[in-house]
Amino acid sequence: MKKELANKLKKIKLLILDVDGVLTNGQIVIDHNGNEIKIFNVRDGFGIVLLRQCGIKCAIITARYSKAVDARAKDLKIDKVYQDAKPKTIAYQKLLKLMKLKDEEACFMGDDLTDLSVLKRVGLSVSVPNGVGEVKRLVDYVTKNEGGNGAVREMVELILKAQNKWKSIISAASQ
Amino acid sequence: MKKELANKLKKIKLLILDVDGVLTNGQIVIDHNGNEIKIFNVRDGFGIVLLRQCGIKCAIITARYSKAVDARAKDLKIDKVYQDAKPKTIAYQKLLKLMKLKDEEACFMGDDLTDLSVLKRVGLSVSVPNGVGEVKRLVDYVTKNEGGNGAVREMVELILKAQNKWKSIISAASQ
Amino acid sequence: MKKELANKLKKIKLLILDVDGVLTNGQIVIDHNGNEIKIFNVRDGFGIVLLRQCGIKCAIITARYSKAVDARAKDLKIDKVYQDAKPKTIAYQKLLKLMKLKDEEACFMGDDLTDLSVLKRVGLSVSVPNGVGEVKRLVDYVTKNEGGNGAVREMVELILKAQNKWKSIISAASQ
Amino acid sequence: MKKELANKLKKIKLLILDVDGVLTNGQIVIDHNGNEIKIFNVRDGFGIVLLRQCGIKCAIITARYSKAVDARAKDLKIDKVYQDAKPKTIAYQKLLKLMKLKDEEACFMGDDLTDLSVLKRVGLSVSVPNGVGEVKRLVDYVTKNEGGNGAVREMVELILKAQNKWKSIISAASQ
Repeated sequence: MKKELANKLKKIKLLILDVDGVLTNGQIVIDHNGNEIKIFNVRDGFGIVLLRQCGIKCAIITARYSKAVDARAKDLKIDKVYQDAKPKTIAYQKLLKLMKLKDEEACFMGDDLTDLSVLKRVGLSVSVPNGVGEVKRLVDYVTKNEGGNGAVREMVELILKAQNKWKSIISAASQ
Repeated sequence: MKKELANKLKKIKLLILDVDGVLTNGQIVIDHNGNEIKIFNVRDGFGIVLLRQCGIKCAIITARYSKAVDARAKDLKIDKVYQDAKPKTIAYQKLLKLMKLKDEEACFMGDDLTDLSVLKRVGLSVSVPNGVGEVKRLVDYVTKNEGGNGAVREMVELILKAQNKWKSIISAASQ
Repeated sequence: MKKELANKLKKIKLLILDVDGVLTNGQIVIDHNGNEIKIFNVRDGFGIVLLRQCGIKCAIITARYSKAVDARAKDLKIDKVYQDAKPKTIAYQKLLKLMKLKDEEACFMGDDLTDLSVLKRVGLSVSVPNGVGEVKRLVDYVTKNEGGNGAVREMVELILKAQNKWKSIISAASQ
Repeated sequence: MKKELANKLKKIKLLILDVDGVLTNGQIVIDHNGNEIKIFNVRDGFGIVLLRQCGIKCAIITARYSKAVDARAKDLKIDKVYQDAKPKTIAYQKLLKLMKLKDEEACFMGDDLTDLSVLKRVGLSVSVPNGVGEVKRLVDYVTKNEGGNGAVREMVELILKAQNKWKSIISAASQ
């Protein structure tokens, strides 16, 4: 890992996630009544649980709205959820204020043009392999795992390892 | 890109989409009540939003019917939707008349034999990697991305870039 | 193509399909109420429509039961559906009798051990890439496309081409 | 196959399965009402049926809860299901006691950190290709097939073949 990335990872106190394409693989599943079904990933979810156990906050900022996101966020005890957030910078600035954090303490994971404005502001900007070119060229890091299939878990592990919090998780889990 | 393709892209004022296999990956998802669930893609959808913001129309012509398509089309503000369209040429001709456009100003994306008749008429005919052989051999362009996973977004970007409308989108999104 | 396969294809008057793993990719999707959602493929479905237009019958024999299969079969006008069929040979023998056909006029596509008994009887036995070893070693042909993603369409085209019925379909569709 | 693995396979009288990532591919599908839809695999399911027919027990231990798991377990006649099991060792120890079995007679398949404690205790510990590194480094065997797509079937066949119970299944199915 590059030293610069390691330094950025050490400062992170808040992980902010886009939903579609990051917490999911980008599929928009619509039922007969026009309601949305969302497809998340179990290992991503458990990663978020571990992150919060280590004292790092987690939030969601998405430009769309679905009740399934609220249900998943509640299940994972995600600290704050902004849906219907257009533009995302407004939600982002409210969030930093609420949590009394600085840009450099925030990591944002996004995949499309609507994420650019927040990605430019955060201390650590991240995208996924399936993200659009303009986003991937801008960010500090592109995950090896796809959105909805381990991308979030990968970032959680990178943050916790950089902050020397991973080993105690493993030894607790192994007993 | 071939010069001929670039010339065709410049003339497009209307993007017409087949649903199954183009806006989706071809999966027909049926629930216990016999109703359909449809799986679209978030980046395709945002592409359609961008296309319309740039003044290019978007329509759907599908030979099947599902309420989920209506819901998705409404969400994306797609200009006109023809479901249960058999044969598709009738809907296509109505659509051109309604929008006062010529064949050469229309692009159609299809993947199967029922799309052949419209693909032969439009100015720019497009298929997807998973399209059937007879369709792929006929069309002007086969997308690199699969249906339901970026094929539509790819065409949107090709059209907007050929018409010099992409850069202003990026600079607006980056602020 | 081997001459033996071509000869077998020419005789087929009935295509019999297993559901899970053949008409689907093998996923068993269960909702909160314990009901099943089924995921089929649009190009497979259109293949079945073409097959029946050419006068070849199509039937389903599955060892499981779901209402989604009935809905899909009705939509595609499949001639006969046997669900909860254990063992499958009983349904198979009823079907041949009903349609007044001989073993050599039937093609069956299956993927698992419960399909072995029928696969041994039909004139043309077919499996899919994801089928179990014991089935794949027995059959006359293993499709190139996966179940739920073109395997059935592939067989439809092989049958119709061997019987010189494909060209008229294409010319009708191209007008 | 290594001799050590073969010896462990011969002793197994109970196969214990994690759900998410093992019986499924790890997708957490949530509908508009916050309820879960689960995606299993038909060949995995039939493998469990075969296993039980050969006198080997099958149980589920999962840290999450969904009604779809109960429905699937009932359909497959799985002997015992523990949902909401945190930590999993408590359910595991109850299960062994209930079935009057020893650690060395149990095989457990898991993919994430919450599975480590049980994986350390069982006679035969197994993970999947998509399992996390800490789990895959610990286990006796990593399946070739992914969770939700044949991993469980693979273990069923390994157990039944090691115990010389596979051939009679095939000959029964072939008639």
